[in-house]
Amino acid sequence: MPSTPEKRVQELHLTLPPAPKPVAVYKTAVKIGNLLYVSGHGPLKADKTMITGRLGTKDFTLDQGKEAAKQTGLAILATVRDTLGSLDKVKRLIKTYGMVNCTDDFLDQPKVINGFSELMRDVFGEDNGVGARSAVGHNSLPGNIAVEIECIFEVE
Amino acid sequence: MPSTPEKRVQELHLTLPPAPKPVAVYKTAVKIGNLLYVSGHGPLKADKTMITGRLGTKDFTLDQGKEAAKQTGLAILATVRDTLGSLDKVKRLIKTYGMVNCTDDFLDQPKVINGFSELMRDVFGEDNGVGARSAVGHNSLPGNIAVEIECIFEVE
Amino acid sequence: MPSTPEKRVQELHLTLPPAPKPVAVYKTAVKIGNLLYVSGHGPLKADKTMITGRLGTKDFTLDQGKEAAKQTGLAILATVRDTLGSLDKVKRLIKTYGMVNCTDDFLDQPKVINGFSELMRDVFGEDNGVGARSAVGHNSLPGNIAVEIECIFEVE
Repeated sequence: MPSTPEKRVQELHLTLPPAPKPVAVYKTAVKIGNLLYVSGHGPLKADKTMITGRLGTKDFTLDQGKEAAKQTGLAILATVRDTLGSLDKVKRLIKTYGMVNCTDDFLDQPKVINGFSELMRDVFGEDNGVGARSAVGHNSLPGNIAVEIECIFEVE
Repeated sequence: MPSTPEKRVQELHLTLPPAPKPVAVYKTAVKIGNLLYVSGHGPLKADKTMITGRLGTKDFTLDQGKEAAKQTGLAILATVRDTLGSLDKVKRLIKTYGMVNCTDDFLDQPKVINGFSELMRDVFGEDNGVGARSAVGHNSLPGNIAVEIECIFEVE
Repeated sequence: MPSTPEKRVQELHLTLPPAPKPVAVYKTAVKIGNLLYVSGHGPLKADKTMITGRLGTKDFTLDQGKEAAKQTGLAILATVRDTLGSLDKVKRLIKTYGMVNCTDDFLDQPKVINGFSELMRDVFGEDNGVGARSAVGHNSLPGNIAVEIECIFEVE
């Protein structure tokens, strides 16, 4: 019997933060037909603070960036579970847009966003958990969060 | 009888600019099935000029930015009406991608894009007018427009 | 008899690079129903190197940028053919998100991304090859590529 996403979260000992509340006029996710559009999420921690920082500065390493992308993934999992009732209703990840808060000379956005993509692969599987993706740099993100990610899932 | 989007535009005394023409090789909106993909729009005014400026500079305030986002929304409403024949054919806003032209240290992108999101809520309603969203900073936008927004609507 | 996309590629003497391999945890394209979501692609050349550079610097001209956008389009065509078996399975281009690596004062992103959009128009036709679009500036893109583009096609 293959594992399910909810079981995988347990097996991997992942701790999801509380499902984030919108900080402005939007919903954290919208379901339309079999697609779930997930709003841009930041690296929300269990204590409800965000991981802030800018890649390419000496104060924020690549490893910290990748960890921020993973934390953003955990926040998105919290939203998906909150919206659908269970992660097991996800059929697959379709598309990810990964935004990295960085200096002009930082060029490793794909390595940063892998922190998110590896989490999705681990939870939803080698095929269903790997989707299309872009990973790019931004000169500024809200509240100086290190990473912001939006994505689309196929759902039941 | 609840109001319709077209009636709301009247009740709110909103003035839509002329539906924008593409300035390059694209369409301002494309309908596929029940989805309407709207191209990136700028803050087009009734006189056909754009609101330009960069958030985070002393020459362009947060209020001006929010107003630019609202004006971008009015331009998108003009495109939607022009494409579908009536705003009443919109079922709901699914997703917004809001881009703010800003300095590296400007961190209030969500407040800026609220100018757009509040307009959509006022026209399409508390539920149908509020969708998924990302709001992020860009170091440069075409022609120095202050805001650029693309979105997806569910339509009849 | 109208030409088909595959015939157009021949008639236009276009040379597609080898279909790019993912450089991180993603797929280059994902088909869901009749939509093909294409990952962010860079200007991959036949020799498997990328066109790098930053618009707005004296080392990289607008013409070079437009050429980079066209080359990105050729890479996307390679991915589409590799994914679907033939470009003739494309019904139309729905939406393009065009990202330009540029300085803060570069304002001609639409002209750059036209290099991609004109190619799509030439291959898929005046109607089916022209979709919704955004063209924006980024302070940094992976590996300093000049352009990154993601898009959505309607397919058979």
